[in-house]
Amino acid sequence: MLPNNVETFIGCDATYADASIVLYGAPFDSTTSYRPGARFGSKAIRGESFGIEMYSPYQNRDLTDYAIFDSGDLELCFGSPESALNVIGERTRTILNDGKFPFLIGGEHLVTLGAVREVLPRYPNLHIIHFDAHADLRDDYFGAKLSHACVLRRCDELLRATEPASNSQATFRPRIHQFGIRSGIREEFEFAAKYTNMHRFDFAGLAETIESLGDAPVYLTLDLDVLDPSAFPGTGTPEAGGVSFLQLLSAIQTVRLANVVGCDVNELAPNLDASGASTALACKVVRELLLALAK
Amino acid sequence: MLPNNVETFIGCDATYADASIVLYGAPFDSTTSYRPGARFGSKAIRGESFGIEMYSPYQNRDLTDYAIFDSGDLELCFGSPESALNVIGERTRTILNDGKFPFLIGGEHLVTLGAVREVLPRYPNLHIIHFDAHADLRDDYFGAKLSHACVLRRCDELLRATEPASNSQATFRPRIHQFGIRSGIREEFEFAAKYTNMHRFDFAGLAETIESLGDAPVYLTLDLDVLDPSAFPGTGTPEAGGVSFLQLLSAIQTVRLANVVGCDVNELAPNLDASGASTALACKVVRELLLALAK
Amino acid sequence: MLPNNVETFIGCDATYADASIVLYGAPFDSTTSYRPGARFGSKAIRGESFGIEMYSPYQNRDLTDYAIFDSGDLELCFGSPESALNVIGERTRTILNDGKFPFLIGGEHLVTLGAVREVLPRYPNLHIIHFDAHADLRDDYFGAKLSHACVLRRCDELLRATEPASNSQATFRPRIHQFGIRSGIREEFEFAAKYTNMHRFDFAGLAETIESLGDAPVYLTLDLDVLDPSAFPGTGTPEAGGVSFLQLLSAIQTVRLANVVGCDVNELAPNLDASGASTALACKVVRELLLALAK
Amino acid sequence: MLPNNVETFIGCDATYADASIVLYGAPFDSTTSYRPGARFGSKAIRGESFGIEMYSPYQNRDLTDYAIFDSGDLELCFGSPESALNVIGERTRTILNDGKFPFLIGGEHLVTLGAVREVLPRYPNLHIIHFDAHADLRDDYFGAKLSHACVLRRCDELLRATEPASNSQATFRPRIHQFGIRSGIREEFEFAAKYTNMHRFDFAGLAETIESLGDAPVYLTLDLDVLDPSAFPGTGTPEAGGVSFLQLLSAIQTVRLANVVGCDVNELAPNLDASGASTALACKVVRELLLALAK
Amino acid sequence: MLPNNVETFIGCDATYADASIVLYGAPFDSTTSYRPGARFGSKAIRGESFGIEMYSPYQNRDLTDYAIFDSGDLELCFGSPESALNVIGERTRTILNDGKFPFLIGGEHLVTLGAVREVLPRYPNLHIIHFDAHADLRDDYFGAKLSHACVLRRCDELLRATEPASNSQATFRPRIHQFGIRSGIREEFEFAAKYTNMHRFDFAGLAETIESLGDAPVYLTLDLDVLDPSAFPGTGTPEAGGVSFLQLLSAIQTVRLANVVGCDVNELAPNLDASGASTALACKVVRELLLALAK
Amino acid sequence: MLPNNVETFIGCDATYADASIVLYGAPFDSTTSYRPGARFGSKAIRGESFGIEMYSPYQNRDLTDYAIFDSGDLELCFGSPESALNVIGERTRTILNDGKFPFLIGGEHLVTLGAVREVLPRYPNLHIIHFDAHADLRDDYFGAKLSHACVLRRCDELLRATEPASNSQATFRPRIHQFGIRSGIREEFEFAAKYTNMHRFDFAGLAETIESLGDAPVYLTLDLDVLDPSAFPGTGTPEAGGVSFLQLLSAIQTVRLANVVGCDVNELAPNLDASGASTALACKVVRELLLALAK
Repeated sequence: MLPNNVETFIGCDATYADASIVLYGAPFDSTTSYRPGARFGSKAIRGESFGIEMYSPYQNRDLTDYAIFDSGDLELCFGSPESALNVIGERTRTILNDGKFPFLIGGEHLVTLGAVREVLPRYPNLHIIHFDAHADLRDDYFGAKLSHACVLRRCDELLRATEPASNSQATFRPRIHQFGIRSGIREEFEFAAKYTNMHRFDFAGLAETIESLGDAPVYLTLDLDVLDPSAFPGTGTPEAGGVSFLQLLSAIQTVRLANVVGCDVNELAPNLDASGASTALACKVVRELLLALAK
Repeated sequence: MLPNNVETFIGCDATYADASIVLYGAPFDSTTSYRPGARFGSKAIRGESFGIEMYSPYQNRDLTDYAIFDSGDLELCFGSPESALNVIGERTRTILNDGKFPFLIGGEHLVTLGAVREVLPRYPNLHIIHFDAHADLRDDYFGAKLSHACVLRRCDELLRATEPASNSQATFRPRIHQFGIRSGIREEFEFAAKYTNMHRFDFAGLAETIESLGDAPVYLTLDLDVLDPSAFPGTGTPEAGGVSFLQLLSAIQTVRLANVVGCDVNELAPNLDASGASTALACKVVRELLLALAK
Repeated sequence: MLPNNVETFIGCDATYADASIVLYGAPFDSTTSYRPGARFGSKAIRGESFGIEMYSPYQNRDLTDYAIFDSGDLELCFGSPESALNVIGERTRTILNDGKFPFLIGGEHLVTLGAVREVLPRYPNLHIIHFDAHADLRDDYFGAKLSHACVLRRCDELLRATEPASNSQATFRPRIHQFGIRSGIREEFEFAAKYTNMHRFDFAGLAETIESLGDAPVYLTLDLDVLDPSAFPGTGTPEAGGVSFLQLLSAIQTVRLANVVGCDVNELAPNLDASGASTALACKVVRELLLALAK
Repeated sequence: MLPNNVETFIGCDATYADASIVLYGAPFDSTTSYRPGARFGSKAIRGESFGIEMYSPYQNRDLTDYAIFDSGDLELCFGSPESALNVIGERTRTILNDGKFPFLIGGEHLVTLGAVREVLPRYPNLHIIHFDAHADLRDDYFGAKLSHACVLRRCDELLRATEPASNSQATFRPRIHQFGIRSGIREEFEFAAKYTNMHRFDFAGLAETIESLGDAPVYLTLDLDVLDPSAFPGTGTPEAGGVSFLQLLSAIQTVRLANVVGCDVNELAPNLDASGASTALACKVVRELLLALAK
Repeated sequence: MLPNNVETFIGCDATYADASIVLYGAPFDSTTSYRPGARFGSKAIRGESFGIEMYSPYQNRDLTDYAIFDSGDLELCFGSPESALNVIGERTRTILNDGKFPFLIGGEHLVTLGAVREVLPRYPNLHIIHFDAHADLRDDYFGAKLSHACVLRRCDELLRATEPASNSQATFRPRIHQFGIRSGIREEFEFAAKYTNMHRFDFAGLAETIESLGDAPVYLTLDLDVLDPSAFPGTGTPEAGGVSFLQLLSAIQTVRLANVVGCDVNELAPNLDASGASTALACKVVRELLLALAK
Repeated sequence: MLPNNVETFIGCDATYADASIVLYGAPFDSTTSYRPGARFGSKAIRGESFGIEMYSPYQNRDLTDYAIFDSGDLELCFGSPESALNVIGERTRTILNDGKFPFLIGGEHLVTLGAVREVLPRYPNLHIIHFDAHADLRDDYFGAKLSHACVLRRCDELLRATEPASNSQATFRPRIHQFGIRSGIREEFEFAAKYTNMHRFDFAGLAETIESLGDAPVYLTLDLDVLDPSAFPGTGTPEAGGVSFLQLLSAIQTVRLANVVGCDVNELAPNLDASGASTALACKVVRELLLALAK
């Protein structure tokens, strides 16, 4: 009797029932306007994860010490962002309903919206920590509201819709905290000046931000293009001037101190880096995040 | 005084006013579900066309003998097929209104629908000649009606909606003529058996079909993946068992005898063939088609 | 409750108990001396199989009509061919013991030996049909007896060891039938003249050979480099002058008439054809073989 | 009436009459002896510039605030460096005659000579600031005087020919200022010790140099291989040990304080970095330079 | 005592004194205007030749049966075609003076001129057999007379300069015999109609041509892009519609009947076909030519 | 009389008799379990070395000042690590017997064992300095003892076998000194804590280590993946978080102070970095090491 051929991220072979963290992939990049390939990200991360080890010398922890389940990739409809977001939302809802931690792997950055739409109702005072090269704060992109270039703007709308009426403009405190941002149109930076807590270029201010959040629930969205293209060329829109892998590792350790209730890692386009180094790095980021967030 | 930097397909530098044929590119592949890149097709064909000659020894004709205008690429919204099709339709309408021949370069195959929706009202008895590896006759693809995998099915709906009521099932004569088809789900082949004039694998029957059409108006849609992947690997879904370049050249000469009123060439994904041979071949196909269809 | 992430070749999702055919991958190319990559073949064929359809217009059959189980890839030790062959043999034995058809996907060509060593004891009068560009009849390769370059020589030793003593030189009838061979050292061709039924360059003589075999048990080993590199560049040692995909399809139809009791497909090195066309073709060959051999 | 298909670097769509800066491309690498591809640099920078934004968060400026004209690529003769340099010179002359700033995009580094030969007569006390990994100070290269490996040596000859006779060896002050140099034959470093103001490895000394120049006219030639190959692998002769993108940005800000009267950016070979990260970085360097030099 | 590291084309390890054929490489593509890379051809052919066998089943011959010397690659000056041709000429002269057969491996097609300029004086009634996709009959290319696009035109000048005065227009018989030609400007085809014996598209007429030549001395120049890009994508200007490898093999067998006194194989650009299939094919063409021409 | 075509690393053209350092390549990666290609490393380093200069501005030395011989690549048997190690050992022995310095270029890291097995008997108190991302301290890898993943463990066995009996556990001082290590299973880090002098992540402690060694003989094994993948993506298992090229240069200068008696550089997989930047960097590392170690 031969068993089924089950494929998971390395070391994530707990049963669903036992697992505290659930991985799920969103192979979608239908709104990517420039160079596509993020659709291949989640599969590449799963497939190439056997090239790294389960043990982290940075954290002296091992994936075998935790119960993590990899539920594989969703089947998403290209050409219909709304439909894709619904499917992502459905899976997120299941995971949350079962009391587990949703760990989403994109795909393009729009997929975040599918998760946030489900996480927010459960945590109305949710904050979002956003690592990215791009502000992603456009109101629309060539007419589309559901675009990778607008995803944090959509999140901002959702979050502000939950603000109590008393939260007047004067006392408004942003709940989106952006780090590493170094690209956008002028209007996005102007918008950020009003509505988000944007830190340009690197992670300066991250520790203070985390401290200020106390135990407020946090959703972490990690666009891998926050990294410098020298470390991570395999992404649709590489932006020179980013952070190093070690800076990102350090930031992950800092985020660990927050009350993170869900997260995603996105925008690996493995086809754009034939050396495989970008994919290998993404695997390591997922491992380090899992080890940092696992209880 | 330095002139503007105008870029066109080689030899297509007539003024719009003088031109009888107008090229326009549709850099769109948002519904491509497998491997993207057709979005880069029209730009690559224009840019690399200087690598071929304007003269064809096959037809003993030269692009300089004809008045052709290249209007460049459209700006299309990723994530919204309907919006993209509208923009394609608008450009098609302008060209038709000005009494010129619309020559569309994709992009994925869905772009055809944008053109056909405008050509059909002007030529209610329009026939479609379809060269392709794929039937493209699905009713929907993961729920999407506007998908590359459904484009001929959508065309079929449009064409049959113009059929006179008297065209009963008994006397129904298909107006979609498919050649080279070698891939699809079983249901597509069953649909074709009822509703289209499908020729599998190659161009057998093309001459007879053309002859039977007389001077009925014809729209030609040429999915380059009708070619064997040995000749044309640069496409999202390469299907072994296709036709050779010389077979395609010969088919183009045959189509020339029909009353072609519009055409498109699509599905070059130049990023998938780093050798450039697929792009160079596509340039030559465009040249041969232009020389065959120009008056 | 989310299910496990099971991955199979498209349409091969029967239970093991129900299945009549069992796929198994041997990701091994440790003896490949020239350009490696065949180790990635079985995984690529499984992963990219969703890019083709389950229905074959060539055979008018559909994978959904048959019960096939994909048991995934074996874990094989690089640097120790004997160990790897043992693991392949063990899986082969299990499949045979359970009365199912073993369908092995390489990997380099040496993996064939692991299967043949198990099939032969069950079918002592086994014949081998061998499609390949290379004779693979060296006695050793830089001293190694277990090498891709020697695999048919090793098979020949096994087969001849089962010959009855009465099978004198005078009446010796080869049980290895080679087709498409166009590369080797002079000594291999001389060896073949004595001991194998070698057909150079193409499939001429295949139908006669099959007919002559009657219902003798046959193992089919298909080295994909029998194809011309124009159709199949993604292999370690591409040899110009090979057969076309359509010729191979036709040969598969012919082999169907034999009593095939096991088979393998090998030598796809997907990393060597970035266009993906070689992998897509290999997927189609596997589909056509499955449909031809399934009962 | 459809307009012509004009292509420019993003945001550089002023009319020629209005423009203060004029871009022009020199797609030439005929003397490149090692790995070619710089010929594709200017076209790639123009074509891919739509992947970056017009706004710079580093300078808080936007290309839309300035009048820049992109005159496209020159048509240059491969195999005849003298002819190519003449064509580059002619375009440079036109731009200078019209009182505009010439901004040349290579191509290999030899193209600089075509511009300098025209800029020098207008500014006899011209200084050259040279960012590069290579000294480019050979007297000849395999016999050729007009070679990328000799271009600063040729510039040195031109500059010293304009020196007043009274500028004795004792009081000679170099007018070529080199930064980032880390590769050359021993003789080039010996030559530099006598005749140029060479700063090895990085930009140390740049601010002091600029200050010492006062308002003397400066031509800036920026060989992108001054960057470390980790940030910029897409160049013919990548030299480990270079500067980072942020160091280069900072150097550009420093150069802004000089009286720059012309500049070039060269040696992107986009074909050598399939990830596109090098091209994207080059686009950003051009944007930052334009924003720094525009008035 | 360790020996020097000598590298040769496989099996070409005779001493120079013993050799009847001498290989020499011309790594030059400085006039290549479109896509460079032919400079890497000769080195790739030498380096990858160990991937093929020394034995040819097509000719039942083995390189070990002949005395061939590989003198390696010349050092050629980029940017100066005249200088490069002189160096090629010098090597050719040495080989001819020593009574051996010169076998040149390019490089771009211009290198042929370097050899022909030396072969012609020794064989004043020389004929040239030319396999190519391109006519190469331009009078100049962007002003350059020494360009790959003009090489046969230059040869024609040389050959006609040796014609006796009595060879009037009326009795003029072309001494350049072109096969496979399928690309050029109209003027080249018109020129060919007057001055060369051009056979378009394939090798039709080759046997008759060879027969008509009797024992006149023949120089064979083989531009590998005569092959269809499906078989040989690794070349600067791939032209769909070419011959197959087997057709070329057959043509080589036919040429064998002529009195060939020198030859070259050119225009492999190995960098343009990452699969290596083009290089492997080129190696095989060199082997088959060597075996066909060796005595 | 034409000379043989001798190929060497740039500037390493001394006679064997004169040479004090001898280069030899080990093109072997048969035990590489993840992504192969190190087999191409030594040839690529030799072939591409002409792209760098012989002069180092870092050390102000020139390869022409030293007598170095490049003996080329060994012929190694794939599939038999023991056989390959024997051939490497034999060459090492010859070099040592002739009183010269063995400088081995891999290949995968296992090749080190072939050299160390010969160096150790001559220097029984040998120490090993090990630069690497990976600990390489597994006892076996999928059952294989001779694997790249176990090479330092095998070296440790050899070294400890030479320890005098009096070297009790209490006074045990490790003779393997590891730097840059950032990947391994937990057991390897536990092993290192007991038996090696492991420095994680970078070169901290190197100077002190070297000083403590005094004039004890040292073998340096440099796995190039100690570098960060941003600088060196061309390796089978890229590990983010490594050292920069300048850090490695500095470490080489430090090692120079030790009594190095043999060394190797390994794990360049040039096929995995199509930009060539990794190969160029490896060439420079070899140059700097040669200049640092030459007397």
